Amino acid sequence: MQVTTLGEALYPSPLRYFVSDSLRLAERIIQRPDEKMTDNIAFELAGPREKLFFDAKTTRAGIVTCGGLSPGLNDVIRSLFLELHHAYGVSQVYGFQGGYRGLDPHLGKEPLLLTPELVDDVHKKGGTFLGTSRGPVDTAVAVQNLIDKQINILFVVGGDGTQRGGYELYKEAKRQNYPLAVVGVPKTIDNDIPFVSQTFGYLTAIEEAAKALDRAHVEARCVNNGISLVKLMGRNAGFIAAGATLASQEVNFILVPEVPFKLEGPNGFLAALKKRILDRGHALVVVAEGAGQELLQNNTQLKDASGNILLNDIGQYLSTRIKTFFEDEDIPVHLRYMDPSYLIRSTRANAVDSVLCDLFARNAVHAAMAGKTGLIIGKLHDKYIHVPSELLASRKRVMETDGMLWQGVLASTGQPASFY
Amino acid sequence: MQVTTLGEALYPSPLRYFVSDSLRLAERIIQRPDEKMTDNIAFELAGPREKLFFDAKTTRAGIVTCGGLSPGLNDVIRSLFLELHHAYGVSQVYGFQGGYRGLDPHLGKEPLLLTPELVDDVHKKGGTFLGTSRGPVDTAVAVQNLIDKQINILFVVGGDGTQRGGYELYKEAKRQNYPLAVVGVPKTIDNDIPFVSQTFGYLTAIEEAAKALDRAHVEARCVNNGISLVKLMGRNAGFIAAGATLASQEVNFILVPEVPFKLEGPNGFLAALKKRILDRGHALVVVAEGAGQELLQNNTQLKDASGNILLNDIGQYLSTRIKTFFEDEDIPVHLRYMDPSYLIRSTRANAVDSVLCDLFARNAVHAAMAGKTGLIIGKLHDKYIHVPSELLASRKRVMETDGMLWQGVLASTGQPASFY
Amino acid sequence: MQVTTLGEALYPSPLRYFVSDSLRLAERIIQRPDEKMTDNIAFELAGPREKLFFDAKTTRAGIVTCGGLSPGLNDVIRSLFLELHHAYGVSQVYGFQGGYRGLDPHLGKEPLLLTPELVDDVHKKGGTFLGTSRGPVDTAVAVQNLIDKQINILFVVGGDGTQRGGYELYKEAKRQNYPLAVVGVPKTIDNDIPFVSQTFGYLTAIEEAAKALDRAHVEARCVNNGISLVKLMGRNAGFIAAGATLASQEVNFILVPEVPFKLEGPNGFLAALKKRILDRGHALVVVAEGAGQELLQNNTQLKDASGNILLNDIGQYLSTRIKTFFEDEDIPVHLRYMDPSYLIRSTRANAVDSVLCDLFARNAVHAAMAGKTGLIIGKLHDKYIHVPSELLASRKRVMETDGMLWQGVLASTGQPASFY
Amino acid sequence: MQVTTLGEALYPSPLRYFVSDSLRLAERIIQRPDEKMTDNIAFELAGPREKLFFDAKTTRAGIVTCGGLSPGLNDVIRSLFLELHHAYGVSQVYGFQGGYRGLDPHLGKEPLLLTPELVDDVHKKGGTFLGTSRGPVDTAVAVQNLIDKQINILFVVGGDGTQRGGYELYKEAKRQNYPLAVVGVPKTIDNDIPFVSQTFGYLTAIEEAAKALDRAHVEARCVNNGISLVKLMGRNAGFIAAGATLASQEVNFILVPEVPFKLEGPNGFLAALKKRILDRGHALVVVAEGAGQELLQNNTQLKDASGNILLNDIGQYLSTRIKTFFEDEDIPVHLRYMDPSYLIRSTRANAVDSVLCDLFARNAVHAAMAGKTGLIIGKLHDKYIHVPSELLASRKRVMETDGMLWQGVLASTGQPASFY
Repeated sequence: MQVTTLGEALYPSPLRYFVSDSLRLAERIIQRPDEKMTDNIAFELAGPREKLFFDAKTTRAGIVTCGGLSPGLNDVIRSLFLELHHAYGVSQVYGFQGGYRGLDPHLGKEPLLLTPELVDDVHKKGGTFLGTSRGPVDTAVAVQNLIDKQINILFVVGGDGTQRGGYELYKEAKRQNYPLAVVGVPKTIDNDIPFVSQTFGYLTAIEEAAKALDRAHVEARCVNNGISLVKLMGRNAGFIAAGATLASQEVNFILVPEVPFKLEGPNGFLAALKKRILDRGHALVVVAEGAGQELLQNNTQLKDASGNILLNDIGQYLSTRIKTFFEDEDIPVHLRYMDPSYLIRSTRANAVDSVLCDLFARNAVHAAMAGKTGLIIGKLHDKYIHVPSELLASRKRVMETDGMLWQGVLASTGQPASFY
Repeated sequence: MQVTTLGEALYPSPLRYFVSDSLRLAERIIQRPDEKMTDNIAFELAGPREKLFFDAKTTRAGIVTCGGLSPGLNDVIRSLFLELHHAYGVSQVYGFQGGYRGLDPHLGKEPLLLTPELVDDVHKKGGTFLGTSRGPVDTAVAVQNLIDKQINILFVVGGDGTQRGGYELYKEAKRQNYPLAVVGVPKTIDNDIPFVSQTFGYLTAIEEAAKALDRAHVEARCVNNGISLVKLMGRNAGFIAAGATLASQEVNFILVPEVPFKLEGPNGFLAALKKRILDRGHALVVVAEGAGQELLQNNTQLKDASGNILLNDIGQYLSTRIKTFFEDEDIPVHLRYMDPSYLIRSTRANAVDSVLCDLFARNAVHAAMAGKTGLIIGKLHDKYIHVPSELLASRKRVMETDGMLWQGVLASTGQPASFY
Repeated sequence: MQVTTLGEALYPSPLRYFVSDSLRLAERIIQRPDEKMTDNIAFELAGPREKLFFDAKTTRAGIVTCGGLSPGLNDVIRSLFLELHHAYGVSQVYGFQGGYRGLDPHLGKEPLLLTPELVDDVHKKGGTFLGTSRGPVDTAVAVQNLIDKQINILFVVGGDGTQRGGYELYKEAKRQNYPLAVVGVPKTIDNDIPFVSQTFGYLTAIEEAAKALDRAHVEARCVNNGISLVKLMGRNAGFIAAGATLASQEVNFILVPEVPFKLEGPNGFLAALKKRILDRGHALVVVAEGAGQELLQNNTQLKDASGNILLNDIGQYLSTRIKTFFEDEDIPVHLRYMDPSYLIRSTRANAVDSVLCDLFARNAVHAAMAGKTGLIIGKLHDKYIHVPSELLASRKRVMETDGMLWQGVLASTGQPASFY
Repeated sequence: MQVTTLGEALYPSPLRYFVSDSLRLAERIIQRPDEKMTDNIAFELAGPREKLFFDAKTTRAGIVTCGGLSPGLNDVIRSLFLELHHAYGVSQVYGFQGGYRGLDPHLGKEPLLLTPELVDDVHKKGGTFLGTSRGPVDTAVAVQNLIDKQINILFVVGGDGTQRGGYELYKEAKRQNYPLAVVGVPKTIDNDIPFVSQTFGYLTAIEEAAKALDRAHVEARCVNNGISLVKLMGRNAGFIAAGATLASQEVNFILVPEVPFKLEGPNGFLAALKKRILDRGHALVVVAEGAGQELLQNNTQLKDASGNILLNDIGQYLSTRIKTFFEDEDIPVHLRYMDPSYLIRSTRANAVDSVLCDLFARNAVHAAMAGKTGLIIGKLHDKYIHVPSELLASRKRVMETDGMLWQGVLASTGQPASFY
C-alpha cells in the first residue's frame, strides 16, 4: 500500500538504524494450500528512515488529542515530543488544546509550547493534559492556522472520526500546496480500528474491567440468587468485554455487538439465566455497550414508558428486563447493575500500554520526519506499519466469532454459542 | 459499663497474658477546666481473661455474617475460627450460611463445619464465603436450633440491625436459661456504629473511593466544563465521602447527610458549582448516598415526572438537577455520573483493615470464652472495649461538623461551610 | 504539658471553629481500681486557635524535610502550604531543599517559593520533592539565614534526630530573641516516636510489606523445603514487621528488636525452623532490621570471615546462618532472601496515610500561627496533640510485648513466645 | 514444519469451529524486494481439530510444572484442566507435584486428581499449586509411571530445559510404542524461547518491574547524587529490563546481555554515570542478571577479595564497582542496590497474561487431543502455532539490538549505543 510522501527526502537522519521504504508486510499471512493470495494488501513498515524530508532545525510540529479518553494519551504526547526533541532536534512542538477545537484560533485556547519539564511526569496521569473534545474543525481555518504558525507536522491522536478529520486536513493542505505531514496515532479503547491489532489503552481497560468483574462476581456470589450485570465499553466491537471475561474467568454470560441475541424464548438469554440461577444460585453477566441495539430499536413499548435512557442504554434496558422477568417468574433475585466505564478509561496506562504508546509515538515521528503524510501508524502481525488514512473508511474491525478470543470466551463462560 | 457474664469463670485460660475485668476506659477523655465529668460511661477493656467460662474441649461455636458486604468479612471469620481453634482448642466451629436465615433450619442451608484448610485463603477474597442476607430470623427458632446443635457461643458479624438481632437472641437464650454467649463484631462500611471509632472495611472503602475520585477528576479535567458527580456510600454519616475527599485532595464539593444544603438561591449549591465552572472549567462533586434526603421528599414535582428512582437516589436526582440547571443557564457542560459503590465494597480488605479484623475477631473470642454475652467489641481511643449491645440503640454515630475530619475536608475542598 | 508560646496572641483567626488552649488529654487513660494516676502527663490539644500570634499578611514560613523517605512527605508539604496559603493567607512559603543542608546558604540550593501550581500533584508521587538528607546543620548559621529571609515559622518534617535539631533551632532563636515558631511534623516509617501512636507512612509501609510477604510465601510454598527470609524496616521497634505479619497472615516466624532470641539450642530459632520444615515443607520468616543486634556483636568469628556486611545486617547474617545450619543438618532447603525496604518506603502514601498527613500538616499550621514553638504534633488516643520537643528525648516507643499487636502476631504465626 | 502425530484421527471433535492441519504460517513475513524467501520455516497453526486421536471418555491426562516461578502458572493449569474437562469431557486429569520429580513415584508425592472445585480460584494466586522443582527425571522411570497410570497425554509447562525433557519423554514413549502426546506450554519469564514472541508472565513481570523502577527513581531523586541500581531478571536476554525501562521512562542506563559493555575508559559506563551525576545529581541504572558476564569472569582480583557472590552476581559486582569508583573520584554518592526479582515473579498474572495463559492452555489441549506430540505451543506474528520441540535446541531468542524495542529503549534513556 503506497503511502504519500511530501517530496524527495533531503536530510540525513540523525538516528542509528533505518528501515527501508521498500520493505512490505502483507495483510494476510496464513498460507492455505492451493490458494493464490491475490488482492493481498501489503504495507510499508514503520521505523526511522535514512533520509528525512524536514529539516529539524526549522521545523515546527503540533499535537492534538481528540475524542474520548483512553489510557496512554499522555504517554503518546510525551513520547512524540521527546522523540522530536531529543532524537531529531525539533525545538518547537506545540500542543493544541481541547481537541480539534484547539486548531481553530477563534474557538480554542492558545497551543502550549511543550518542554521537557512540562511533559516530565505526565505519563503517570490518566487523561490528556492537552484536553480533548469531540467533533470536527473547519478544515480551511485549521490549515490556515497551521500555515500561520509555520507548523509542517501535525500528529492527530484519535479514533476513526479523528483520523478522517486528519485526512481532510492533509487534503486541504495538499490543495493549497502547503507541505503538511499529517500522521495519525490510532486511539480507541474499544480496539476496533482496522489494521491495528492492538490500540493503546485497550489492555489497560481489560485489566481494570477484569478487576470490576471479579468484584461483581463477589457481589453475586455472596447473596442468594445474586445477579451482577456489568456494562463495559464496546460500541461496535466486544473486545473489551471478551478480553476482560477471559482475564477474569468468572463470567457466566457475555453479550457483544458481534453476536445478536434474543431475550425471550426457550433458547433466549433470559431462559439461560434462569437455568443458571436455579442451578447455581448466582450469575455474572457482562454486556458491551453496543450489544443488542436491535432490541432497543424494536421495543417501542419500553421507549414510551421509560424515556430516552432505555433507548440508548442496553445496560439499563437489560437490568429492567431481567428484573421484570424474575418478578414474573416469581423467583426472588438480587440484581445489581454496574457501569464502571468512566472509572476504567480515566486510569493511567499500565506497563504494556506504556510500551505500546512509546513505540506508536516514536514511529509516528519517524514517518512524519520522512515527509510521509495522510497515514496512521498501524500494528499488524506484531509489526508497526504505515496505513494510508483513506484505507480506514473501507473496513470495520470487529471480533471474529470463529477466532481464538471469542471461542476462548465461550469455553470459559460455558454459554451457548447462540441465544436464538 | 457492666457487661453481662454468663456465670462464674471456671477454667484456666491457655493464653499467656491477661486483661483484668476491673480495667476501665471512659468515653470522654478530654479534660476541660472546671468541668466534673459526671455521667461519663466507662467500658471494660477487651482482651484475654485469666479464667474462662467455657471449657474449650466441650464447647461449640457458631459464626454468622449479615447485611451488606464490607471488606474484611472473610478475615473476621478466619481469625475467629483460628483463635478458637488454635489458641483455645475449640474443635467445632460452625459457619452459618446466608446471614440470619442460616440460623433457621427451615430456611437456610446446613452450617459449614470450619477447618483450617477451608479458611486458609479466604482472607484474600472480598465478600463473605458464608454468604449473607438482610433481615431478621425468628428468635425462638434460632435459639432452639442453637440448643439442638449444642452451640454455646455465637459470633454475629453485622451492623446495627444485626447486633440488635443478636441482642434478641441473647435475651431469648437467657429467658430459656440456656448459656449462650452472643458476641458481636461490628460491621459497617459507613463507619457509623457508636463506640466504634473505626469499623473494618471503612479504610479499604476510603482507599478504593479515593481512587475513583482521582479518576473522576481526570474525566472532568480533560474536557471543557467537565463535571464529575460521584455517589459514595454513607446512609446516615458521611465518613466515606469525607475520608475519600481528604485522601484524594481533588474534590471541589462534597455533600453529606450531616450537613443539609440548598440547591437554589445565591448561596445554594448550584450557584457555587456555576461559579466554579465559570472560573476553572471543571469540577468534581461527591455526594454521600444519604445526603439531601429532605430535597427528595419535598420535591413532589420531580417525583411525578421521573418515578421512584429520583425519590430514593440523591445521585440520580442531583445529576438531573445539575443538567437542567446548566441547560437553563445556557452553559454547555459535560456531566458524568458515577456510582462505584458495589465495586468498592466487594474488594478484599487492605492491610490496615486486615489487622483490624484480626484484632476485632480475637478479642471477640476472648470475650466469648470468658462467658461474656450481649456485647459487641468496640474500639475507643485506640483501645478495644466491650460495649453492651443495649447501648447501641441509644446513639447514632455521625461526623462532627466541628471536628478535625470535616474541617479538614472544608479546607481541602475550599467549599463554603453552608449552602444556605 | 506546657507548650511554649512566642507571646501574646494578637490577631483574630480567619477560621470557623476553635480549640481552646485549656483542654487537656492525659497520657494514661485506662483506669485501674485503687490507683491514683499521679505523674500523668497531660497534653494540649492541637487545632485552630481563636487568636493568632502571627499576622498572615507579613509572615513568611519555611518547610524542610529530613532523613529517610517515608510515604506521605509530599502530602505533608502540600497540606502545610495549602493551609498556610488558603486558610490563613500566608503568601510566602519557602521549601528548603535537600534537608537541613538547605538551611545553610553555603551548602544548599536556594529554597523554592511554593505556589499552588507547584504543589498541585506532588502528593501523587513518593519521596519528597524538596529533597532530603541526613545530618544536622550549624544552628547559628541556619537561624541567621532564617532571620535574613525574614522567616518566622519553620516546619521540620522528620524523625527523632530532626526534631532534636528543630529544638536546637528554637533555642538558638530564643537566645537571639528572634520570634521563631518551630513546629515539628513527626516522620518515622518505623512508627517509633513517643506520643505519636501512628506516624504517616507507617500504614502504607504495612500495606506494601504485606504484599511482599504474600509473594515471599508463594516463593517458599512452591518448592520443596522452601524458606523465604524477608527483612523489613524497624531499627528499634518491630511495628512494621508485626503489622505486615498480621495483615498477611502467612508468616511463620517473626524476629523483632523488642524480643531477643537465640539461634542455637533446643529452644532456639533454628531448631524451631527445622521442625517447621520437617513438618510442613515450607516457611516464611520475617526479620526487622534491628532484631538480634546482640548476635551480630558477639559473633566475631563471622565478622572475620565475612566482613562488615554481616556485622550490620541481620538479614544477611540470618541468611548465612540458616543456610549453614541446614547444610550441617543435611536437609536440602531452598532459601531465598528478600529485602524490599527501598521499594516500600519510596511509594506514595495510601489513602489512610494521605488523610493522616493532611491532618498532621493542618494542625502544625494551626500551632505555628498561634505562636506555639518547640513542639511537634502528636497523636494520642485518636486525638491530635501538642508535644513539647524536649519530651521526645525522654522516651523510646517500642512495641509492648504484652500488647494486642504482638500477642495477635504470636497467635497468627503460632511461634513460641520466646526462643530461649 | 511437520509436527508428529500419534496416528490417524478417529473421533469427531465436540467443538464448534476447527483449524485445518493444512494451514501454514511462515517464520519470516517481511518481504524484501528481490529476495526469494527460501529456507523459510512454516508452522502449523494451533487450534481445535475436526478429528481427534484420543477418545475423551477413556483418556487420562497429566500436567506438570517445572523450573522457576512465572506469573500465570496456575492460570495455565486451570485452563488446561477446564478445557479437557468441560470442552472435551476428559474426566481424569492428574496434577503431578513438585516438577519432574513428581513423575518419579519414588521421589515425589502422589499426583492430585484435579476437579473443578480444586482449581476454582487458583488463578488468583501466584506460583503453582502443583509445586515445582528444577532438574530432570529418569526418562524410563517416568514413562513407565505414565504407562502404569494409563496416562496418554502429558502437558509440560516449563522453559527450554523442561521442554527438552519433554522431548526425551516423547522419544522414550515412542521407543516403547506407547501412545503419549507430550505437549509443551512454554514458560519463561525472560521471554527468551524461540518461536514464542511473548511468553506468559513476561508482561506481568514488566508491570511489576516498572513499578520497582519508578520507586528506585524516587529513591535516587530525593537525595544529593542518588544512584539507584536495580537488578532485573534476564539470563540470556534483556527483554524484562528493556520492557520495564520503556514502560517506566525513568531509567538513565540499562545494561543487558545482548550488549557487552566496558566499565572503565572515557567511553565506559562509569564515565557516563559520572557525567550524569555531575550534570543532573541523580541516576537510575538497570542491569539484567545476565549482563556483563565477561566482566565477572576476567576479574580475578575481585573474586579473591569478595568470594563467590561477586563472581555470579553482576548486581553486587556493579554495586561494588560504582561505590569504589566514586570514592576514588572523591564524589560522595548515595548508592542503593535493589533486587526485586523474587517479589516480581511470585505475583499472580495480570489481565493480559491471564488471557495469554488461557489461550496457550486451550491450544495445548487441542493439539494433544488431536494426537499431536513432541511439540510446544508457540506464538508468532500474533498467531498460535505448533512448534516441534526439536526445533527449540537450534535457536536462542534474544533482543535484536537494531529492533524497535532496544532502539526505543536507547531513545528513552538517552544512553549511548555502546560503552566501548
